[in-house]
Amino acid sequence: MLQKKGIIVTGDRPTGKLHLGHYIGSLAQRVALQKEYTQFVLIADVQALTDNFDNPQKIRGNITEVLLDYLAVGIDPVHSTIYLQSLIPEIAELTIYYLNLVSVNRLKRNPTVKAELQQKSFGEEVTAGFLIYPVSQAADISLFKTTLVPVGDDQLPMIEQTNELVRAFNRIYKREVFVEAKPMLSRMTRLPGIDGKAKMSKSLGNAIYLADSADEVARKVMMMYTDPNHIKVDDPGKIEGNTVFTYLDVFDPDHDEVERLKEQYRHGGLGDVKVKKRLIEVLNTLLEPIRQRRALFAQHTDEALKVLATGTAIAQEAAQKTMKEVREAMGLMQF
Amino acid sequence: MLQKKGIIVTGDRPTGKLHLGHYIGSLAQRVALQKEYTQFVLIADVQALTDNFDNPQKIRGNITEVLLDYLAVGIDPVHSTIYLQSLIPEIAELTIYYLNLVSVNRLKRNPTVKAELQQKSFGEEVTAGFLIYPVSQAADISLFKTTLVPVGDDQLPMIEQTNELVRAFNRIYKREVFVEAKPMLSRMTRLPGIDGKAKMSKSLGNAIYLADSADEVARKVMMMYTDPNHIKVDDPGKIEGNTVFTYLDVFDPDHDEVERLKEQYRHGGLGDVKVKKRLIEVLNTLLEPIRQRRALFAQHTDEALKVLATGTAIAQEAAQKTMKEVREAMGLMQF
Repeated sequence: MLQKKGIIVTGDRPTGKLHLGHYIGSLAQRVALQKEYTQFVLIADVQALTDNFDNPQKIRGNITEVLLDYLAVGIDPVHSTIYLQSLIPEIAELTIYYLNLVSVNRLKRNPTVKAELQQKSFGEEVTAGFLIYPVSQAADISLFKTTLVPVGDDQLPMIEQTNELVRAFNRIYKREVFVEAKPMLSRMTRLPGIDGKAKMSKSLGNAIYLADSADEVARKVMMMYTDPNHIKVDDPGKIEGNTVFTYLDVFDPDHDEVERLKEQYRHGGLGDVKVKKRLIEVLNTLLEPIRQRRALFAQHTDEALKVLATGTAIAQEAAQKTMKEVREAMGLMQF
Repeated sequence: MLQKKGIIVTGDRPTGKLHLGHYIGSLAQRVALQKEYTQFVLIADVQALTDNFDNPQKIRGNITEVLLDYLAVGIDPVHSTIYLQSLIPEIAELTIYYLNLVSVNRLKRNPTVKAELQQKSFGEEVTAGFLIYPVSQAADISLFKTTLVPVGDDQLPMIEQTNELVRAFNRIYKREVFVEAKPMLSRMTRLPGIDGKAKMSKSLGNAIYLADSADEVARKVMMMYTDPNHIKVDDPGKIEGNTVFTYLDVFDPDHDEVERLKEQYRHGGLGDVKVKKRLIEVLNTLLEPIRQRRALFAQHTDEALKVLATGTAIAQEAAQKTMKEVREAMGLMQF
């Protein structure tokens, strides 16, 4: 058997279809790493419920969408274990034990929680579920003895919280059940939305989805934010903050040509439509095979769901194995 | 099949052997009710870990002690389901879903939590596990569709918290999965310790245990707090706050004789030793059959643990059934 370089846990909340931002930020990396690493890919429905508890239908519907996106981009169930969080009760069990090892104040100081609290304006009425979700996340990660977690730098406090719990557990229960995880920082900067806003996001309505048709991609690119002062073709244009060029930098394999176009755009004489048409072609070249695979799996969702069921069974087995060690370390009774 | 009057969930944290205070406060009632009600008796090891997380050996050891106490007093596995909390992962699962339905502030306002926070002087560094334990308790109760919970009046806020969660769940997920529980208030006042302090408690070291030998009971009664001004036999003595008489009121079946003794004690001419000897006899008459059954089960702890394993399997089945309804109501995916 091939010696793997480590264990990765990664995943997404099933709150919507995945988009180009996900592709660049994480999906492409998962495909690239799945042969070298043992990779667990989590569809985090329980975590999604923390701020969608009153809309479970949304979560339910998007589990299949996210699953189709995974299969479409080439996350391969032969190499990656795709599983559903709510079917791993061991995560809840470990969360309950972890909650004894962290103070309420420590949770409130978590910068990611702090930031999200402000963003979501829960105010003083933040739910207990939201406050403790970093602990659930720590259980997600450590239950699989994860060594690497792909994250953006805004997620580093989550890894730190996880490792604090790992150290506390191992120290208090005097057994090295869990291992500390290292962050695998994404080199890719965050993809802006088509409106030029900092982040492509379903909630901002500025996303190009992996499932979008070629026409839809074209329509969205044609709406894309460029340089508002670049009105006539002959006007000199700005590259900085020009979303079309940001995308070309990321997605166009011909970097020399992109540099040439930038030069021409700066001096004047290159129209937005022409650059956009190039981007449409670049994106549709990338997305067409993904789209085709997605359409194929979408015609056989039963088969896709079998993949999820199988992955979940594999994850359950791994989770049960670790929880057995947890019980032994804690001296819990087992029959 | 006999129509049962309702479903009861009750239990104890396995932090020590059970004593006369438990017997009077709850154990005797459980024995009395077990034929008329469907009764689940929980050995709450997970809850015990919230404030003993760094001493799991203590909890582990006391599971068997509490189990032996249950069997000794006559909690009958034919009528009562005795089960171990840590082996019902559905409690943890439901707790996680309940945590989305309650705010952090609501938990902090829980009077029982508030009081225990002061008592245990966690200060600002209260653990997350302690803060959320009323939610775990709500899961304990509602998972079995409990209609009645035997409590002291200091525990009423726990029932209220449970019912708030029951109502919130049923409302949000539009299905009557859970039922509200009613408190079954104990008529019995709290038994003081042998030192006369308000509460018999293992932590105060003032308890008479069900497992105590006849000699140990005699020794403890002889140490019992009476009237410190009743020095000579002929001195008039006080009944109020006199622990020996408080116990006689509770345990002596001959109420008339107790009243006669009180009269004599008040007027002078009745020595402490004589009253104590009567109490020793009364207590040992009550405890001797319990003690004998306990010794018998203690010689066959394997058999006792089988009772626990069987009860746990029954509770697991009931818990799984309810969690299936929870999943259906929430629209969670099931394979």
